Amino acid sequence: MRVNDLDTPALVIDLDRTEANIQRLQAYCDQHGLGLRPHIKTHKIPALAHQQLRAGAVGIACQKLGEVEVMLNAGIADILIPYNLVGQAKLERLARLARQGRLTVSVDHEVVARDMSRVLAAEGARVGALIEIASTIERAGVVDVAEVVRLAQLIDDLPALDWRGILMYPTNADNISLLDRAYRALRDAGLPPPVVSGGGSPFMLRQAEVPWLTEVRVGTYIFEDMTGVKGGYFSLDHCAATLLCTVVSAPTAERVILDGGSKTLTTEGGAPHGHIVEYPDAIIYKLNEEHAYTDVSRCPVKPTIGERVHVIPNHVCVAVNLHNVAYGVRGDEIVAVWPVAARGLVQ
Amino acid sequence: MRVNDLDTPALVIDLDRTEANIQRLQAYCDQHGLGLRPHIKTHKIPALAHQQLRAGAVGIACQKLGEVEVMLNAGIADILIPYNLVGQAKLERLARLARQGRLTVSVDHEVVARDMSRVLAAEGARVGALIEIASTIERAGVVDVAEVVRLAQLIDDLPALDWRGILMYPTNADNISLLDRAYRALRDAGLPPPVVSGGGSPFMLRQAEVPWLTEVRVGTYIFEDMTGVKGGYFSLDHCAATLLCTVVSAPTAERVILDGGSKTLTTEGGAPHGHIVEYPDAIIYKLNEEHAYTDVSRCPVKPTIGERVHVIPNHVCVAVNLHNVAYGVRGDEIVAVWPVAARGLVQ
Repeated sequence: MRVNDLDTPALVIDLDRTEANIQRLQAYCDQHGLGLRPHIKTHKIPALAHQQLRAGAVGIACQKLGEVEVMLNAGIADILIPYNLVGQAKLERLARLARQGRLTVSVDHEVVARDMSRVLAAEGARVGALIEIASTIERAGVVDVAEVVRLAQLIDDLPALDWRGILMYPTNADNISLLDRAYRALRDAGLPPPVVSGGGSPFMLRQAEVPWLTEVRVGTYIFEDMTGVKGGYFSLDHCAATLLCTVVSAPTAERVILDGGSKTLTTEGGAPHGHIVEYPDAIIYKLNEEHAYTDVSRCPVKPTIGERVHVIPNHVCVAVNLHNVAYGVRGDEIVAVWPVAARGLVQ
Repeated sequence: MRVNDLDTPALVIDLDRTEANIQRLQAYCDQHGLGLRPHIKTHKIPALAHQQLRAGAVGIACQKLGEVEVMLNAGIADILIPYNLVGQAKLERLARLARQGRLTVSVDHEVVARDMSRVLAAEGARVGALIEIASTIERAGVVDVAEVVRLAQLIDDLPALDWRGILMYPTNADNISLLDRAYRALRDAGLPPPVVSGGGSPFMLRQAEVPWLTEVRVGTYIFEDMTGVKGGYFSLDHCAATLLCTVVSAPTAERVILDGGSKTLTTEGGAPHGHIVEYPDAIIYKLNEEHAYTDVSRCPVKPTIGERVHVIPNHVCVAVNLHNVAYGVRGDEIVAVWPVAARGLVQ
């Protein structure tokens, strides 16, 4: 089966590029003695997670228990969930899953830690726990060093949680001050963090500069995308995931419509909504659900109805999440048809 | 099972509001002698499509053949696809589906019409065809009246297409001039359009003002959403689809994090990313994939970790499309658990 045989729109993964992306960051982490823990939220495909592990990853990260279930079922045991898990239903599910693998979670509040330990202990399960430290993106995470130490002592005391260390997202030069202070305070309190987990795509090749870091979490590196290309930290030539689309309408000489809209690409990142490989001068200036409005006025040769093009999405993680199936290709040959197994498992 | 038993995030559909929304637009269309053809891209759930038909809809619209397959399999026969279908694989699939129901498609170009008729004729199938007329949104559609007449004559001649009329999106006061001129020209050429299909949520209660209109296509009316509320054409009290989310982190007194991010709501429409029913003064100012950053500084009482809230999304069609399951509720009782059967079927 060839790419030309696919109906559109279709999520197409260039396997040579994907493997090169995996190898490149693994080599960097190996060179600097850092563990690489790929975040599978980008691809949600067990076969690709296994490929990352075979290349040398120390484990994976999942953002949701639905993703954890898919990956445990695919035989992957070492999973970090860098997210507060809250609520009885979710914690009972965590307890079941914790007996199937080596799970680590993050917590940023006493209430989260106590509830988790209570439910896990009742079910006879336990997990490792990292404390999430707030970064300058001001998302989740503990904002105060003294509170970090108190929470670490609590985790160390709670029956169903194992103290494993600290976690931050992202880790870059702007953020490391609190990480550094938290690390030192924990060490001085007799709870040196065995794990210091950081990451973030824009900074992935500078993680060796972060003090105390033991592992790097990054997701997008496997495919790269236009957000990274525009940000200057990914390369167009490394972008491995594209949406194969068809020109379905050409109402004027300046405009064509592709069959990939906001339910194929998402509108995230705004216009231009991705990059058309075959027509770099074309601009996708607007998306409806199934229409990509494309300005071709600057193209020396215009695409015509029925022609197929590859679109690199702005944010590959949310684009992949729209598709049930991914097609792995080498050149124009389709060598893998993968269910995007963990997509849509929002809980 | 009660809403409180659901894990989060979860797509929750208020059935009383949904039914009232269905009835309200059906009553308007009945009163004005217009056929209502709901677009199921909003919900993608066969049970809701059947509910729309039982209320009096003349048929449904689907935007993709994947949606058509799901709805044909659910016993719905009269389906309009207001979209150019292009490419051999898609047209062969259309031919198969055309023998299972009464399908109508739109076309806006001679190439699209000829290819379709060729493939359908070879497979012994036929479909009805509407010509899409360009509107002021400048998406797809024929822009020239003389070309509309030529294309209608071609459709009338082609062996596997049945001439059914014209279609436009949206139909409002700004757009109807071309529709009106196209209708008159076709009538004068001996091809009066049996069907004149229009629609568009913002204008749904003014479709009776559009000349020649025979049917109204509208999707979002079944659930309504914040885009419509902000635009002044939907009401907050009619919004029927919400995302049930949990407060998973409260790092400061001003900020909480909900477990519904861009993979639960999408970033479409920008900040504020939806409306929190229980905390109307809270502002979801940023989304990551699984985090909703929420400013609660203006809330007299602040939400706490573990609390659950309902979020009305900005654009309900793309939010529903992220979920595998929808929970239909009356009050706090869950009375239906529906697979979002046609989601992810991008082709």
